[in-house]
Amino acid sequence: MLHFESDYMEGCCPEILRRLKTINFEKIGGYGEDEISRAAKDKIRAACGTEPDAGVWFLTGGTQTNAVVIDALLRPWEGVIAAETGHISQHEAGAIEHGGHKVLTIPGVEGRLEAAALRRYMERFEADSARDHLVQPGMVYISHPTEFGTLYGFNELCALRAVCDDYGLKLYLDGARLGYGLAARGAELTLPDIARLTDVFSIGGTKVGALFGEAVVAREPALLGRFFPLMKQHGAVLAKGWLLGVQFDELFTDGLYLQRARQAIEAAALLRRGLLDRGVPLYVDSPTNQIFPVFSNAALAVLGKKIGYTLWEPLDAQRSVIRLASSWATKEPEIELLLDAVDEALRLS
Amino acid sequence: MLHFESDYMEGCCPEILRRLKTINFEKIGGYGEDEISRAAKDKIRAACGTEPDAGVWFLTGGTQTNAVVIDALLRPWEGVIAAETGHISQHEAGAIEHGGHKVLTIPGVEGRLEAAALRRYMERFEADSARDHLVQPGMVYISHPTEFGTLYGFNELCALRAVCDDYGLKLYLDGARLGYGLAARGAELTLPDIARLTDVFSIGGTKVGALFGEAVVAREPALLGRFFPLMKQHGAVLAKGWLLGVQFDELFTDGLYLQRARQAIEAAALLRRGLLDRGVPLYVDSPTNQIFPVFSNAALAVLGKKIGYTLWEPLDAQRSVIRLASSWATKEPEIELLLDAVDEALRLS
Amino acid sequence: MLHFESDYMEGCCPEILRRLKTINFEKIGGYGEDEISRAAKDKIRAACGTEPDAGVWFLTGGTQTNAVVIDALLRPWEGVIAAETGHISQHEAGAIEHGGHKVLTIPGVEGRLEAAALRRYMERFEADSARDHLVQPGMVYISHPTEFGTLYGFNELCALRAVCDDYGLKLYLDGARLGYGLAARGAELTLPDIARLTDVFSIGGTKVGALFGEAVVAREPALLGRFFPLMKQHGAVLAKGWLLGVQFDELFTDGLYLQRARQAIEAAALLRRGLLDRGVPLYVDSPTNQIFPVFSNAALAVLGKKIGYTLWEPLDAQRSVIRLASSWATKEPEIELLLDAVDEALRLS
Amino acid sequence: MLHFESDYMEGCCPEILRRLKTINFEKIGGYGEDEISRAAKDKIRAACGTEPDAGVWFLTGGTQTNAVVIDALLRPWEGVIAAETGHISQHEAGAIEHGGHKVLTIPGVEGRLEAAALRRYMERFEADSARDHLVQPGMVYISHPTEFGTLYGFNELCALRAVCDDYGLKLYLDGARLGYGLAARGAELTLPDIARLTDVFSIGGTKVGALFGEAVVAREPALLGRFFPLMKQHGAVLAKGWLLGVQFDELFTDGLYLQRARQAIEAAALLRRGLLDRGVPLYVDSPTNQIFPVFSNAALAVLGKKIGYTLWEPLDAQRSVIRLASSWATKEPEIELLLDAVDEALRLS
Repeated sequence: MLHFESDYMEGCCPEILRRLKTINFEKIGGYGEDEISRAAKDKIRAACGTEPDAGVWFLTGGTQTNAVVIDALLRPWEGVIAAETGHISQHEAGAIEHGGHKVLTIPGVEGRLEAAALRRYMERFEADSARDHLVQPGMVYISHPTEFGTLYGFNELCALRAVCDDYGLKLYLDGARLGYGLAARGAELTLPDIARLTDVFSIGGTKVGALFGEAVVAREPALLGRFFPLMKQHGAVLAKGWLLGVQFDELFTDGLYLQRARQAIEAAALLRRGLLDRGVPLYVDSPTNQIFPVFSNAALAVLGKKIGYTLWEPLDAQRSVIRLASSWATKEPEIELLLDAVDEALRLS
Repeated sequence: MLHFESDYMEGCCPEILRRLKTINFEKIGGYGEDEISRAAKDKIRAACGTEPDAGVWFLTGGTQTNAVVIDALLRPWEGVIAAETGHISQHEAGAIEHGGHKVLTIPGVEGRLEAAALRRYMERFEADSARDHLVQPGMVYISHPTEFGTLYGFNELCALRAVCDDYGLKLYLDGARLGYGLAARGAELTLPDIARLTDVFSIGGTKVGALFGEAVVAREPALLGRFFPLMKQHGAVLAKGWLLGVQFDELFTDGLYLQRARQAIEAAALLRRGLLDRGVPLYVDSPTNQIFPVFSNAALAVLGKKIGYTLWEPLDAQRSVIRLASSWATKEPEIELLLDAVDEALRLS
Repeated sequence: MLHFESDYMEGCCPEILRRLKTINFEKIGGYGEDEISRAAKDKIRAACGTEPDAGVWFLTGGTQTNAVVIDALLRPWEGVIAAETGHISQHEAGAIEHGGHKVLTIPGVEGRLEAAALRRYMERFEADSARDHLVQPGMVYISHPTEFGTLYGFNELCALRAVCDDYGLKLYLDGARLGYGLAARGAELTLPDIARLTDVFSIGGTKVGALFGEAVVAREPALLGRFFPLMKQHGAVLAKGWLLGVQFDELFTDGLYLQRARQAIEAAALLRRGLLDRGVPLYVDSPTNQIFPVFSNAALAVLGKKIGYTLWEPLDAQRSVIRLASSWATKEPEIELLLDAVDEALRLS
Repeated sequence: MLHFESDYMEGCCPEILRRLKTINFEKIGGYGEDEISRAAKDKIRAACGTEPDAGVWFLTGGTQTNAVVIDALLRPWEGVIAAETGHISQHEAGAIEHGGHKVLTIPGVEGRLEAAALRRYMERFEADSARDHLVQPGMVYISHPTEFGTLYGFNELCALRAVCDDYGLKLYLDGARLGYGLAARGAELTLPDIARLTDVFSIGGTKVGALFGEAVVAREPALLGRFFPLMKQHGAVLAKGWLLGVQFDELFTDGLYLQRARQAIEAAALLRRGLLDRGVPLYVDSPTNQIFPVFSNAALAVLGKKIGYTLWEPLDAQRSVIRLASSWATKEPEIELLLDAVDEALRLS
């Protein structure tokens, strides 16, 4: 059985495990106030081209990161605008509402929130004579890559930024898979672009080479208020904060983060090409590490015996969309075995 | 410099690191739905003597664990009773209030909540003609060991249970340092006692041999409602849930958890004896891994050059209480060096 | 200028003002614990045909009532299902999310949530392999009349009840305009039907003859937990609770509530007939006190000089939907004047 | 039976009822956006000596007012400092915690929070090396009169303001009984003083001549953010907002508010003098409309047959503190009858 269900099935880059072993009996101060974490933050600032006083914090997971950042950016009467397919709209079990905020959804395009749609939404809101009875939009949430593995272009992000500026909205980019977005072929947005065009964004470790952990970056940390106490209040502070520092320190040494992400991208590109060569349609054509092919349910019954995949959604009575994800640890021969299994599934169904 | 500030300064038992390395490239399912996590839960159930259907969940940290459990046990109009010095009363940055619940405090004795004081509190509440205008007490929070390293005796816990039963209160025991409470000399309460006498309790990994992680145990899981979605809502679910499963699996194999805890207890006992021999008074006489000696500020100025400690609180203008903590990784020679430094501090001050 | 913007523009039935004057200097106990409030509750129980131990409480407004009831019925991991046009989905400024709960929306039909659509939603939820990462549906919210003044038929409410029973969902009916729903021509549902088929419902006073106030009725009060402390926590308890008791006592004496509602229904029926006679299309054909005609924007420019209306939504570039509401205080001659103004607007545009 | 349990047992000043009758069938716009409410706000601004752009809003009750104002002033990581006896600390069923904020208590003196104690609290907070793990103090809550009917002197309020300025804390004064505080003999603080020295304060109507309603006043409305949507979110907006406007318009016409408050003060002064003349000790010597005499329980058994009072708290096994409240509607002969009943109780016990 080969597993392509997700990109969080393996442990971490060996460099991280080695480092953990090396320092296991060193005594390190708590709550992220240690030298290793400080060094990791400096490396992230350098990679983002941000000022030395940009804010960087480490949290343990994606839903937690979204909830804490959104809670920091919004006032109680405000909500967060997101695409209908946004992770916060659907798959966080109400974490944003638990913090008291409504997720205001707009239909997206392949997971992307479009600037024009956002502008229409805000125009309609401003024109509504009963707008004081509505949740006030306070910020915009996007993810990059999106839930469908797609990316924003440079101009697209600039356009979103412009709408945000016009309406006083803050812009937050959820980068749970950011490495794969940066390393994708044809990717336009660099880390410094993202740091400059958003108010706050996250750099996902969990799915890109770390055991777990997300970094939050904010050009102007004051925008997040007293972020550490807020993290603590959300149960998002690790006693051994250095655990996160170590991982990001390794990932941001000698370009390991991007290098590992590129490995996943190469594997996914091989898979994408192989599927297209075999005439398998793609539900969304993603340039990152998640591929969304459409198979007949009969083919899936065969495929499922050898390949672990995620059922994304039924397309019609006969066909379904699945997700196949490569990761920083995926190797080319695995993709070849996967394509062999696809061949067999197509043949036998 | 020798560090005794806390018991969360080292990494983890080498067994855990070895296991992480072994399985690093295995592909494991997400969110704690994996074989390793299931095995770890079974081992915990066995150690607790609970039924096969007792609930066990893994979370990442102590404040998070308290917040999620309390949110699960309370209805919106209810609050949680705790000792004034309880961790939730003070040091969680308002995590419980963030969930909408008031912490109702009662003065404790050396960190312990006493059954008689709890009963008086409930009698007064029931007698208050305006009690419908008050927060309704719904549960009791205790920690074992307490913030002062002290322990509940068997009869003391039974007495608390009895008051809880009389007033329909749920009883939750925060075991962030549970290993040290179980391994302490003269400790009366066993894991099965605690599992039977409380409704829910936690087994701390972060401070007792794990990199991070807490296990929550509930005899009757229905009492916690739909606990997994609630964890998710609180940002308390790790994508790689098996990271926690692996750690508890190791800790609950061949008694490693208690064995490691005992090492900290031996070190602390050596320290306690050494301090008493030198005439250093103890603010609280703790049988666990945290020792609270009183020193003159002059002595502390000397001691601080060689020893890292936590300033607990000023006792008067001349003297302060400090905390010295041993951990599962502390070795006897370190205690001897610490006592040498104490000798020097006493001599030079 | 004649005003038909809404049904909350006048004060109250004169009977209420008279009673307030009569008892103005009587000294009455606080927080709803008084004889008048008790009598009013008994009259409501009688009108609903509920058991003597059914729960009845008085709150001050509709959004508050929805927020408190929903907070009482849901556990923290649960959300409330509503039609997309439901009042809680849109026009309560995030009051439900402020309480930590997501509003899960389903497209409605003329404001109604249909049983078949609810069942499909629940089937899809139950079939979702990631459902533990979603907000758990805990209850269903409907309003009667709906936002569009439409009504549920007897069989429709029975069908919703059946789906709720199948999936363990609670059913709450927001009756902010309940009087108009009960008094409408052809209305199938009686107060006892509603009391029996829902778990909790409200009887609106604010829009049906009272100065302000809503009654909440629950067959089984235990379902709402400790509702009084929860009301207090939500700031929904009036010191002079008898103010609400007096109003409902008058409204439920000698059938005043329905009698006054009928007056609004007669006025609206006259208006509806008059509009149809003049060829004015209705966006939704409502049998209650809210009429939704479609006019050209040119006609509205004329009409607006004499008639106050609520702009509901633009239909296209030339036409708009407006709302014209009658109330318990509307008299027939006002409708005739309104129709004269319509004639003029149609003629001049 | 004569009732002195509280100051919210009667209806309202007859002027208000008359006005309600006069305008009962006028059609008035909703949600407080009407001429009467605007006029009332202007009168309040004039009485407070604030700028024309000071913010004034009307809410329905005291707990609601406190909850909304505090939610507006605090960021999520902040708490509100109050005296231990503060209304928000005890008698609001956790309304502040429901909004996610901790009430940080300091022992008060006769209900007053003292500037020196506040300064010590803040000094200790700032000096705490773990202060990022604590709830961050964001504002100060006081009431005037306090729960014990006592008042702040001019210098006392200036001193509190100074501490707030030194530590960046906002200052909110709960004026649920403000009229009685302004009208008390020897009262130092005027409405303009309070408007100038606090950031936000409330003017209670419920207990001082209105049927119900509180006005919130803020020199700089921006400090409260988007207050109307927040009110709506808290269920604190009345559809017929003019109901509140009417009441405050009457109360702030020709000094009615203070004139009616003075009537209660005169009655209370007569009572206080009468009690002291009879040798009845006062638990707290309040200059306002609440008097707190100490009686033997035997005397109370007799008194209770003729007089309704509130049992405040037991003083010892034999004696209790009670509260006797006059109101804007109390007349001197009632006090004389009350004192006769006291005479009888003292004689027979």
